[in-house]
Amino acid sequence: MSRTSISTLGEFGLIRHLTQDIKPCQSSTLYGVGDDAAVLNFAGKSRDATLVTTDLLLEGIHFNLEYVPLRHLGYKAVAVNVSDICAMNGTPTQITVGLGVSSRFAVEDIEEFYLGVRTACEHYKVDLVGGDTCASMNGLTIAITCLGVANEQDIVYRNGAKVGDLICVSGNLGSAYLGLQLLERELHVFRATHHDNLAKADEHSDAIHEKFEGREYLLQRQLRPEARVDIVQALRKAGIKPTAMMDISDGLSSELFHICSQSKVGCDIYEDKLPIDYQAAAMAEEMNLNIVTCVLNGGEDYELLFTCDIHDYEKLVPLDDVYIIGHITEPEYSSDHPERPSNLRLIPRNGNPMPLTAQGWTAF
Amino acid sequence: MSRTSISTLGEFGLIRHLTQDIKPCQSSTLYGVGDDAAVLNFAGKSRDATLVTTDLLLEGIHFNLEYVPLRHLGYKAVAVNVSDICAMNGTPTQITVGLGVSSRFAVEDIEEFYLGVRTACEHYKVDLVGGDTCASMNGLTIAITCLGVANEQDIVYRNGAKVGDLICVSGNLGSAYLGLQLLERELHVFRATHHDNLAKADEHSDAIHEKFEGREYLLQRQLRPEARVDIVQALRKAGIKPTAMMDISDGLSSELFHICSQSKVGCDIYEDKLPIDYQAAAMAEEMNLNIVTCVLNGGEDYELLFTCDIHDYEKLVPLDDVYIIGHITEPEYSSDHPERPSNLRLIPRNGNPMPLTAQGWTAF
Repeated sequence: MSRTSISTLGEFGLIRHLTQDIKPCQSSTLYGVGDDAAVLNFAGKSRDATLVTTDLLLEGIHFNLEYVPLRHLGYKAVAVNVSDICAMNGTPTQITVGLGVSSRFAVEDIEEFYLGVRTACEHYKVDLVGGDTCASMNGLTIAITCLGVANEQDIVYRNGAKVGDLICVSGNLGSAYLGLQLLERELHVFRATHHDNLAKADEHSDAIHEKFEGREYLLQRQLRPEARVDIVQALRKAGIKPTAMMDISDGLSSELFHICSQSKVGCDIYEDKLPIDYQAAAMAEEMNLNIVTCVLNGGEDYELLFTCDIHDYEKLVPLDDVYIIGHITEPEYSSDHPERPSNLRLIPRNGNPMPLTAQGWTAF
Repeated sequence: MSRTSISTLGEFGLIRHLTQDIKPCQSSTLYGVGDDAAVLNFAGKSRDATLVTTDLLLEGIHFNLEYVPLRHLGYKAVAVNVSDICAMNGTPTQITVGLGVSSRFAVEDIEEFYLGVRTACEHYKVDLVGGDTCASMNGLTIAITCLGVANEQDIVYRNGAKVGDLICVSGNLGSAYLGLQLLERELHVFRATHHDNLAKADEHSDAIHEKFEGREYLLQRQLRPEARVDIVQALRKAGIKPTAMMDISDGLSSELFHICSQSKVGCDIYEDKLPIDYQAAAMAEEMNLNIVTCVLNGGEDYELLFTCDIHDYEKLVPLDDVYIIGHITEPEYSSDHPERPSNLRLIPRNGNPMPLTAQGWTAF
């Protein structure tokens, strides 16, 4: 049997390959694979839909327990799933937690993790309704499923962006990525200078944490991100229904790629409109990284990326922490990739458009 | 900080410890942690409830890919979740699949797994509506969440068994466990004789599969179990609503322990009533195992264990593949474990009652 390396398809290619011809048979399935969450309707004639989304978080791939406190990890595991429900313009309601735990973890470790889970559940008003806790051979495995609700007519998919729509983001971008770079750098410094007593985890974190003064915001963005429930509520209150929306987990470029592909449109975004925190800008400078590259391709910001009809401009401007970064354009197609628009562009300060590249997430 | 080994609590103890004081805040949460699935109502005034259940399946803990074909594994991963929905007397409707894949897997491997998933989805009329596919450091990680529906008044919990109720099981018990023993034995024989070319996976399975003539049923029960959707339908058709129900994943003793603890009752089950397949009996004999021990403590049968009001006796008797194995008794409590009934008894052929021991699943 021929054996094709998964890296030849990449994450998005593999998912597309596995799910491309799935046809639902249940009348309660309104929308299946292909967005931040699936949309179900168990209520029959009522227009109340149920949303469901699942995320796996695996040690060594998604987190490094050398610098991620278990309590923060529990919080983040909930927040990233809540973020997917927000990205559908829904309200999160319940989660289940699957946890695989190897023998190196003690009951107290799992308590710490659950403390974070439960703190997040209280914060987001989400009920922990079930799960599965079992042994694992290696490391910590976390599988969280989040359910949510929305009126069918309020749900926002990735595929609704129209030519002329405004492109908006919440918060700022690149900070979580720079927080990760900072943590990784300090870990390497620590390993190089303390290679003989890495096992002393407590000293370890103390030593590292001293180096983080003035960069707390970056660490918070990486270690304890928040889902933007507040933005979903603010949009609703302002009477704005985005035409397309998703959360920024893999990076702005990658998410624009999803929205433009599924909506069959192009886009222009403007370098000077990208929201950047000053700690992120300073950190990029110090690390000799291009801050715009961090903003475009750094992941895990869990901010919302959405498009709005141009007529909503007046309602958008007064909103706190929402930034208009560009607009949707007519699609153009190249012969290399006839299946998706090729004209996703960054307009730099000097005005010469550059094509955005969708890097996505390539851990395979 | 003190560190308590997880093994001191065990699986059930750990889950209880982590979830004991969880209070729901969403009005849509009708029943949370503590049964085969959580019960939600998104439909407002309607009595249609949504069921949700999650299972983690981890390589090296729950399955061994040296003898488990990936296609069967995909099928089983769906079936065991569907079984949890059946155990609530519900109808399964949707699943999500989270998959963590290490670099030793090829695209074709994942296709095989998904083929099994999709075959099961078609068989059980369940829609695959979402998921998450990502890289893993080690082995294959599977997280499946299954949603289902039921009228609220039809849902059967673990806590409804009453004194005098009949105890029933579907199918037969112990076969999946003996299938596992057979596979493990042949793997050891194979390893001992072919230790230098274990990597040749295809030859490997061919060599092993020749040894399984006349034991196909045991292998099928272990490798490709079915959820008893048919029993749920037959009970409904016969006008029987069980008073308590769960599926047998950890073994009959362990599940009786759950039902009796949550219902605050005791039970008597009769050795000569336990349904046993002849292949299982022969295999136990050959392996010098006590078949009753296999029936009581062997897991993964995914049959249904349920209790029924004595007045349903006449309706139960004509049902195919349903066996009455005992009855529910008044609870007795011992000073060792004042929190749960102690009188769970097996009545052997010789008539001297023996206490059942709840072994549960102790992979920690």
